[in-house]
Amino acid sequence: GTARMGVAYNGNDGVKDWNFSSRIRVKFTLSGQTDGGLEFGASLRADQANTANSTGAAGAAYISGAFGKVSMGDTVGASEALFGDLPEVGYTDLDGAGFGAAAMHLGQNRPNLGANEIPYLTGDDGGTQFDGYNSGPNVLYTGTFGAYSIAASMSDGKDTGREGQKSPNGSVDQEAAIAAAYTFGNYTVGAGYEFISGANGMEDKSQAELVGTAAFGNTSVKAYYAKGGKANTLDQGYGLGVTSVFGATTVLGYVQHIENSFDGPMSQDGTTYGIGAAYDLGGGASVVGGVADSDIDGTGTQADLGMKFSF
Amino acid sequence: GTARMGVAYNGNDGVKDWNFSSRIRVKFTLSGQTDGGLEFGASLRADQANTANSTGAAGAAYISGAFGKVSMGDTVGASEALFGDLPEVGYTDLDGAGFGAAAMHLGQNRPNLGANEIPYLTGDDGGTQFDGYNSGPNVLYTGTFGAYSIAASMSDGKDTGREGQKSPNGSVDQEAAIAAAYTFGNYTVGAGYEFISGANGMEDKSQAELVGTAAFGNTSVKAYYAKGGKANTLDQGYGLGVTSVFGATTVLGYVQHIENSFDGPMSQDGTTYGIGAAYDLGGGASVVGGVADSDIDGTGTQADLGMKFSF
Amino acid sequence: GTARMGVAYNGNDGVKDWNFSSRIRVKFTLSGQTDGGLEFGASLRADQANTANSTGAAGAAYISGAFGKVSMGDTVGASEALFGDLPEVGYTDLDGAGFGAAAMHLGQNRPNLGANEIPYLTGDDGGTQFDGYNSGPNVLYTGTFGAYSIAASMSDGKDTGREGQKSPNGSVDQEAAIAAAYTFGNYTVGAGYEFISGANGMEDKSQAELVGTAAFGNTSVKAYYAKGGKANTLDQGYGLGVTSVFGATTVLGYVQHIENSFDGPMSQDGTTYGIGAAYDLGGGASVVGGVADSDIDGTGTQADLGMKFSF
Repeated sequence: GTARMGVAYNGNDGVKDWNFSSRIRVKFTLSGQTDGGLEFGASLRADQANTANSTGAAGAAYISGAFGKVSMGDTVGASEALFGDLPEVGYTDLDGAGFGAAAMHLGQNRPNLGANEIPYLTGDDGGTQFDGYNSGPNVLYTGTFGAYSIAASMSDGKDTGREGQKSPNGSVDQEAAIAAAYTFGNYTVGAGYEFISGANGMEDKSQAELVGTAAFGNTSVKAYYAKGGKANTLDQGYGLGVTSVFGATTVLGYVQHIENSFDGPMSQDGTTYGIGAAYDLGGGASVVGGVADSDIDGTGTQADLGMKFSF
Repeated sequence: GTARMGVAYNGNDGVKDWNFSSRIRVKFTLSGQTDGGLEFGASLRADQANTANSTGAAGAAYISGAFGKVSMGDTVGASEALFGDLPEVGYTDLDGAGFGAAAMHLGQNRPNLGANEIPYLTGDDGGTQFDGYNSGPNVLYTGTFGAYSIAASMSDGKDTGREGQKSPNGSVDQEAAIAAAYTFGNYTVGAGYEFISGANGMEDKSQAELVGTAAFGNTSVKAYYAKGGKANTLDQGYGLGVTSVFGATTVLGYVQHIENSFDGPMSQDGTTYGIGAAYDLGGGASVVGGVADSDIDGTGTQADLGMKFSF
Repeated sequence: GTARMGVAYNGNDGVKDWNFSSRIRVKFTLSGQTDGGLEFGASLRADQANTANSTGAAGAAYISGAFGKVSMGDTVGASEALFGDLPEVGYTDLDGAGFGAAAMHLGQNRPNLGANEIPYLTGDDGGTQFDGYNSGPNVLYTGTFGAYSIAASMSDGKDTGREGQKSPNGSVDQEAAIAAAYTFGNYTVGAGYEFISGANGMEDKSQAELVGTAAFGNTSVKAYYAKGGKANTLDQGYGLGVTSVFGATTVLGYVQHIENSFDGPMSQDGTTYGIGAAYDLGGGASVVGGVADSDIDGTGTQADLGMKFSF
């Protein structure tokens, strides 16, 4: 499991205050092996209630072998599975400065869009969310063959809250994504393509991503470019994250810029940035602090300093 | 714990679609022994949220010794404790074709009445449910003495949601059940009697069951006959289940027929049937699929194919 | 984890009935140690749903060393951390006869005020509750240096349900408490001071406690005196608890008296008392029973007899 405790500053409009913030999560990791050598397993998370982040429990089941790994449940989309996000700063991740917290239309279908998160179109929490509905459980395939990694994901297009039933009023039908990456030496380049088919008059949305990572000595760098298509509310986004390790100390930072694809009073482009550091105390404990900010209306500086424990 | 993943077809009216379906459960099993040799324990289940089946957690505490076993909490009734249900087919149990899913009055107080489930009157989830109320925590006693097994259960007649208080409007007062079974060689025969006393003008209900099981080589058979009394919505029900094991493959099937005890537009008799197979991959993993159907209005064919893991 | 099962009598108005009562809790205890020798950890509780007491999960994270221990999350206040409550009687604690169950204004901001609980002003469940709001996560420091123990706690004054935001209508701003104790031989004496600053026109509240404990052979005694100040609804309270151990049998009892600081139709002073016994079966199981009562309007005799298991 993991735990964290410390103080966090939220500079958003109407808050502008320091808080105590702690969270505990216990993760159950189950695994087994068939007689034929396939591995299977599941993970499930028990969260502390009484925190803003208590969604109860989330988990995924999987089976894996030489063919790769198939996961079902609360999985991410194919692009996120291969490329991940920009580095997290702060002991609480400091999402409050991000696009999801702001009055940008982007946030509507991207509930986890913190300041450091690449605006993937699909996945996260098992499916895209629109209007309070969810595109349903995702299945995710990932496989690595030599220097190549590939991933594919899709939802079944049914409202998770009402298993087996398509939401009659939902605006999302089904989602799918594919991604591939190639690694040579200390460099990895990859590309992903994500698609959501609309329902009830909502138009389709698509998105493509290019991602590259590189490692130079103690420093690793990740850069992405994302371009929306069809009715995607994202026109384009790009960002850079850097992580450097100096002995027990890790310094991380990122900056990203996102542009809407539409005009009007709700439209707003935005740039987020964050910088932080972590000091490893050994044994699974570290002191972590960071600052994140953006130029998005309604958000303010976020900062925290605390401890993270992993068990 | 257990996990499952796969695809399931729901042919009910308004659905008629394939879905991804996965679920993860972690079970905590606690046990101890007193200095005098009594065993005690408890089990508690952590479910994955975000599934249609997430009731949070369910569990029961028990103490056992030479006298038998006394359980309290979310226990089944005495008849179900001794005789169980007909075999489950499919990796998701395929309850959707059952009486509970249909517009039969039977389902009202039998929330778990899937296609393969014997329509016991009491128990399940710790008490009978009427009008959204629950007859309260059950206590269950089971004991085996040589060839004889006996069981007795009762609720305390209080609404679980409001511990210590009887629901002022609830239609159920208290429930109780007794059951006994006798085993000779490969045969077991048994009988059970269940009773619910009504409240607030609702009449009492009773039900009796006769159950027999037999094992022939690799095949085992279970048959039941249930007869309702007093104001029971069930007039009679009967069914047969068969399980055959061929090496790593198990084939299962069942058929049952249930008749209402009342006339009118809501009255409907029904027959459900299901057939399925499981292939054991070893190590706790199996591939499981099945088909279930019934002639009950509003339900359609149910089918699935997936994997079950146990850890 | 822990489990309990048995029968409980609730004599409160409108109930007056025996119930089955069982509960299961699984506790996850996580701990680690840094390279520098600091200990850290967290505890999280998984409760059985379907009981009146299912608040989901509660937990706290901590770090400790020679300097003492700092906890964050669902912690108690400083006074309660050092002095605790009067002894619990019965296998279910028999809170129903207490001040919290009665129409006393005291109960409003002291949600856990069972018959045996000292009416501390702050803490419990991570913060004081007013009007359905909670003063937010608590941080608690405790340290023992030779014969001296000290504790300090404070909340961040934000509504827990809305992390990072102060409730616009909440009547509580921030809470803090300090306490100290001195132990000589079999005697401990201590004092605590607690303070809540009001918000939105509500006045501040304060409270001081004096507590003494003594051990005589197999018997230990705890006595307290609490005095409210400012707008505290408690004028004064005092009580005595006794625990005696005779081999495998423990006998416990308490009596306490609480007086309101205001007049009017809602004002009511009250005396609660309880007596119980526990018989240790070994291996973590015990048979526990008790009776508690008070002269508070609306409450009646509480009694239970059951088993407690700890694993």
